[in-house]
Parts: sequence; structure tokens; C-alpha cells
Amino acid sequence: MRRALELAANGPATGPNPRVGCVILAASGEVLAEGWHRGAGTMHAEVDALSRLPGGGARGATAVVTLEPCNHTGRTGPCALALIEAGIARVVYAVSDPGHESSGGAGRLRAHGIDVLGGLLEAEVSDFLADWLAAARLGRPFVTLKWASSLDGRAAAADGTSRWITGPEARQDVHRRRSAADAIIVGTGTALADDPSLTARDAAGALLPGQPMPVVIGRRSIPSDAALRSHPRPPLFLPGHNLRAVLADLHGRGIRHAFIEGGPRLASAFVAAGLVDEYLVYLAPTLLGGGNLALGEIGVTGIDGQRRLTIEHYDRLGDDLLVVARPR
Amino acid sequence: MRRALELAANGPATGPNPRVGCVILAASGEVLAEGWHRGAGTMHAEVDALSRLPGGGARGATAVVTLEPCNHTGRTGPCALALIEAGIARVVYAVSDPGHESSGGAGRLRAHGIDVLGGLLEAEVSDFLADWLAAARLGRPFVTLKWASSLDGRAAAADGTSRWITGPEARQDVHRRRSAADAIIVGTGTALADDPSLTARDAAGALLPGQPMPVVIGRRSIPSDAALRSHPRPPLFLPGHNLRAVLADLHGRGIRHAFIEGGPRLASAFVAAGLVDEYLVYLAPTLLGGGNLALGEIGVTGIDGQRRLTIEHYDRLGDDLLVVARPR
Ligand SMILES: NC(=O)c1ccc[n+]([C@@H]2O[C@H](COP(=O)([O-])OP(=O)(O)OC[C@H]3O[C@@H](n4cnc5c(N)ncnc54)[C@H](OP(=O)(O)O)[C@@H]3O)[C@@H](O)[C@H]2O)c1
Ligand SMILES: NC(=O)c1ccc[n+]([C@@H]2O[C@H](COP(=O)([O-])OP(=O)(O)OC[C@H]3O[C@@H](n4cnc5c(N)ncnc54)[C@H](OP(=O)(O)O)[C@@H]3O)[C@@H](O)[C@H]2O)c1
Repeated sequence: MRRALELAANGPATGPNPRVGCVILAASGEVLAEGWHRGAGTMHAEVDALSRLPGGGARGATAVVTLEPCNHTGRTGPCALALIEAGIARVVYAVSDPGHESSGGAGRLRAHGIDVLGGLLEAEVSDFLADWLAAARLGRPFVTLKWASSLDGRAAAADGTSRWITGPEARQDVHRRRSAADAIIVGTGTALADDPSLTARDAAGALLPGQPMPVVIGRRSIPSDAALRSHPRPPLFLPGHNLRAVLADLHGRGIRHAFIEGGPRLASAFVAAGLVDEYLVYLAPTLLGGGNLALGEIGVTGIDGQRRLTIEHYDRLGDDLLVVARPR
Repeated sequence: MRRALELAANGPATGPNPRVGCVILAASGEVLAEGWHRGAGTMHAEVDALSRLPGGGARGATAVVTLEPCNHTGRTGPCALALIEAGIARVVYAVSDPGHESSGGAGRLRAHGIDVLGGLLEAEVSDFLADWLAAARLGRPFVTLKWASSLDGRAAAADGTSRWITGPEARQDVHRRRSAADAIIVGTGTALADDPSLTARDAAGALLPGQPMPVVIGRRSIPSDAALRSHPRPPLFLPGHNLRAVLADLHGRGIRHAFIEGGPRLASAFVAAGLVDEYLVYLAPTLLGGGNLALGEIGVTGIDGQRRLTIEHYDRLGDDLLVVARPR
């Protein structure tokens, strides 16, 4: 299974499909074939491994796979069926498939007399697939909300000026995390006020390999010379204010991890709607006062309605602090 | 000097006077006498040590003392003079006296032909005397401002409810730090809204040994049955809004370390006036939104006017985070 996980890691870290690895073992324990999934529209890991064997070469063998074989006909046929047809005798997997359409593979295999064992290295593989699993369970993208504020919770000074509240280490951390997401989302307010490029860049300003899709939410139109129109991926403009519909739309486009970068109005709306799965709060050691809050109204009236979080991690980044938290 | 510092630590941690220790050594290195200061109105460390020797017993000896001997006649005579009269040949001290009235002791000793050496273990002793030294340099109490807020900078929910934003570990930390200060200060707003007792208590609710003076600032009067009127020390009511005058008044009463516990209006006024030397920000992992900010207007208009801080220390206290910062 550890080898299957290594193989899985060869796949693309972002995109709609999970990274899956598969090893086919003879009864003797000898490795017959290996495979992994290379992304949407390509062979699933099990089929990739089977394809490396001559006809009948997998008869009586064991398939070790990081995710429960799918039971779903999408752009490729169900893996459960491929394993059955190849004459596999035993399937060992790490994590159950939480998808509504694709799950049930283990049951189908068992119904065909195949010996099935799930849960091997489950914690490690769950960790590896965390974003994809969360999205599959939620039926929408996993949502990370990021904001940067002063220690007193302001996103900008009273006159709106805010350049470089946080230092270079914190900004670099944001870019690194951006590049691991499928989409970066801002409201029209931020797009119009800041004219951001919405690219993920390294410290020298060069583009990182992973460039999430830039998404702007809101009805106002964005000028034709806006920086984000030069993004390596064509930006998506979603005029609605219904955030569940926005996420459903993005899910349909294969977005599994959405990174919300503000501004305050959009951030508050996501919090109020209970649609945030992870918070990244960059706290700069400065005080600003005034009315430009990082978070505005979130629908909490009394202390009993507070949105309690759990701090998962905190760290110093240069002069700043990063707090990573999740809803309780 | 390390022994002198140990002796100094026998003195009272709060109050107007510094904790000072003194060791008198014979030319052979033998310890002849030890002394320390026991608080305002009692003998200074040097005089305390000399008083343990018979007349003439200190002739030709070395006095090792943590603070430059004072040159000031207060309730006791100047220590410099006492050392001169005792026939001390050499004085070694750690930290110079920054006081306007009391400094100049080293010069006076030298003028009488005494060999004087300053700066031994200076960093360690400065650290030990930090609050007192800061107050002496500033000519006013050292001011710690504490607030507790949600991660989005709110002190209470929109309807004003706020009980137990932070957990027991954070509250215990506040009480421990309170008890090390000379005064706890709140505005009338907090006194009227929360009816706080302003005592320093342990986890079981019992009074800690150190009980700073409770101080309420503002013009509104506080009811005769207010909890703070049962404080072991009689509360002080200061009706002015001029915070420099308030601090000067407290300084005159022997307060060297003032602990400001809010609320938001008083806290903001202290920040705006540039009168905060240390910030203690307790961040609870919760989101509240709304308008009850921990800090309001602090006189910053643009980002160039921001009040940059340096984070000195941060730590997890139960579920909460504590950030200790100082003005840059
Ligand atoms: N400190 C930080 O981390 C940070 C991050 C980003 C931005 N900022 C600052 O924030 C400022 C912009 O703030 P902002 O709040 O106006 O920008 P915003 O949140 O980016 O945009 C607000 C707009 O989002 C659209 N929107 C879509 N769905 C919505 C919903 N459910 N609820 C509310 N709005 C929705 C609306 O656009 P339409 O009105 O067009 O329909 C709304 O006007 C800028 O000055 C920027 O510098 C700070
Ligand atoms: N989260 C926390 O850490 C925390 C801590 C403490 C309190 N609180 C909450 O804060 C709320 C009270 O807030 P608040 O802001 O009204 O209380 P406050 O800051 O304690 O009191 C405000 C009052 O302080 C007096 N004052 C004296 N000098 C002043 C100056 N230079 N500028 C402004 N005011 C000055 C004024 O009293 P007069 O008008 O009488 O002259 C003013 O009305 C309560 O609900 C309490 O629960 C929260």
C-alpha cells in the first residue's frame, strides 16, 4: 500500500479527480504491474496497472489500491468491473469512496466472490486525499477562506490604504497555498479596487507551476484591461450572489478546492452562509483602528450564535502570525 | 553580583521602589554582610547591608549592588553618602539609575576617590527590573494594555454579550499578570456594564497574594454596591479623561506598572495617546462579526500612520492564543 501511495503521488495534485495508485501482486507476493491515475479523462489507476499485463496475466492476483475501486461509468468504465473481468482474486484498499455516484465498488466486487479488504493505511491515505475527500463528502468544493488583518482585525486603514500589511514571508505563504488550490475567488469589489493578477508567484515574481483558475463573483463588470485578464488561465466571471450556486457551478467545472481571497464583503457572506471549511488568518503586528474590517456582518447576534473554530496550527511568518483554523 | 540579585528578589515585586540587593566583600573576597530593600520607607539595600556591620567594619571593603547607589534624599538619606561615610573603597553595580532625582550616585562616589565599576550582569538585572526601569525612564507608570477578542477583532457579540470568549487558561493567565501589576484600570463603561471585582484570583477563585489597586477612570459614578467596592484595596476613582494626567497622578501614588483592562473606549484612547508600552492580546478561536470592536478609533487615517508593533512572544493558552507585543 505504501508503494501504491507513492505511485498515486505521481498524479496531478489539483483537478477534479483523486490521485490514486495501484499495485498488482501475484499470489507469491511478486509485483506484476503498477499504475496510477494521470488526471480527468485518462485511465484510472487499476485499469492503468491492468493494461500493463498481457490478457489473463492478472488472473488470481491481488490488487492493492489507495482508493476503493469505483463503481461508476464516467468517461471511463467502472474499475470494479475491470478488476472482475481481469480475474482478480483479492482487492485491498485504503480509503472508501465517499462519492454518491462512484461508491459501492467494494460491494460489487464481493458480489462477484472477490475477497475485499478496506482500511489499510487509511489515515495516511485520507490525509493525502484530504481536499478531494472533503469535496466528495460535501458535494461541493472544499473552501479555504484567507484574510490578512492587523491585530485589531482591520483589513485596511480608515482611508482604504492597505498595501503590505503583512510581510514577504506571509505573502509567499499565500502564493504557495494558492498554487495548491483549483480556483482563487475574489469579489468584484477586490477586483475593481486592487486590480489583482490572481496568479501564484514565487518570491522573485515568477509564475509557480500550479495556477488555479481565477474566479470573480459579482454583477459589476471588470474592465477589459484588468490584470486578471492576462492570467495564464482564462478567468471565470460569475455574476450571481448565491454562493451555494456558485460552488455548485465550480464543482461542475472540476474545482475541488476553492481559495477565497476576499474581500471583506465576500468573505463575510461565505462565513454567514456556513460555507467555509478552513480559515487562514494572517495577523500583522500593527494596529489600524477605523471601519475597514477584515470581516463584517456574519449573521451572529448574541454570543450563543458565535462561530467557534478550532485552531489547527499557528506559526510565525517573518513579523506576522498565521492562524489556521476550522469550524468546530 | 549574582548573589546580590538573589538578595534583591527577596524584596516586594510591586510598589514604587526597585528591588535591590547588596553584598559587602572584604579585600580577601570574604562576604562581610548582605542586605536588600524591603519596600518604600525602609532602608535601601546598601544601608541595610552596612547596618549589619560594627562601626568601621566596612572600611576598605567592596560593595556589590544591583543598582547604582542613589544620590537622593527621600525618606532615607542618599546611599552614596552612606557608602562614603562607611569608608567603602570600591563599588561595583549592574544597572545605572535612570531616575532624574536619584541618579548621579556613581559620580559622587568617584568624586570621593572611590573606585566605581558599572555594568556587571547588566542585561540580567535590567530584565529583572524591567517595569521599574521603564517607569523611571518614562517618568510615568509602565502601561500594559490587555484585551480579549475573537479572531475577527470583536470584544463582544452584536448584542453586547461576551461572557467567556476566552477559556480558563487565558483567564488564569490574565489573573497571574494582574497580580504582578500595581494597578488595574478600567473605564466607567466596563465598571458599569460588567460590575467586575478587579481582584486577582487563582483558578479556584481565591485571592492571589498580590492585589493591585483598582482604578476606575471616567466621570460617571459607580453604584455603592458595585463589586469593586469590596476589593481588598480601596478603589481609586479618577474622573478626568486626560490620560497623561491620570498616569502622572498614579505615578505620584507609587504606581509603576498599570494594567489597563478596558473597555474598548478607554483602550482606544490609550493607544491613540501613544501611552501603551506593552500589549497583551488574547485571541479566541471564534468569529463574531458586528460592531463591538475590541479597539475602535485610534487616530490612524492612512496606512503610513499605522501603529506597528513587534511581537515579543506568542503562545497557545488552552484553545486561545496570546500575543504579547510592544510598540516598534
Ligand atoms: N486584507 C485582505 O485580506 C483583503 C483581501 C482582499 C481584499 N481586500 C480589500 O477589500 C476591499 C474590497 O472589499 P469589498 O468587500 O468591497 O470586496 P469584495 O468582497 O471582493 O467584493 C464585494 C462584491 O462581491 C460581490 N458578491 C458576490 N456574492 C456576494 C454575496 N453573497 N454577498 C456580498 N457580495 C457578493 C458583490 O459584487 P456586485 O456588487 O458587483 O454584485 C459585492 O459588491 C479592497 O479595498 C481590498 O483591498 C483586503
Ligand atoms: N473583551 C475585552 O477584553 C473587554 C474588556 C473590558 C470590557 N469589555 C466590554 O466593553 C464594554 C464597555 O465598553 P466601553 O468602551 O464603554 O467601556 P470603557 O472603555 O471601560 O469606559 C469608557 C469610559 O471611560 C471613560 N474615559 C476616561 N478617559 C477616557 C478617554 N480618554 N477617552 C474615552 N473615555 C474615557 C469615559 O467615562 P465617562 O463617560 O464616565 O466620563 C468613557 O465613557 C463592556 O460591555 C465590557 O463587557 C471587553
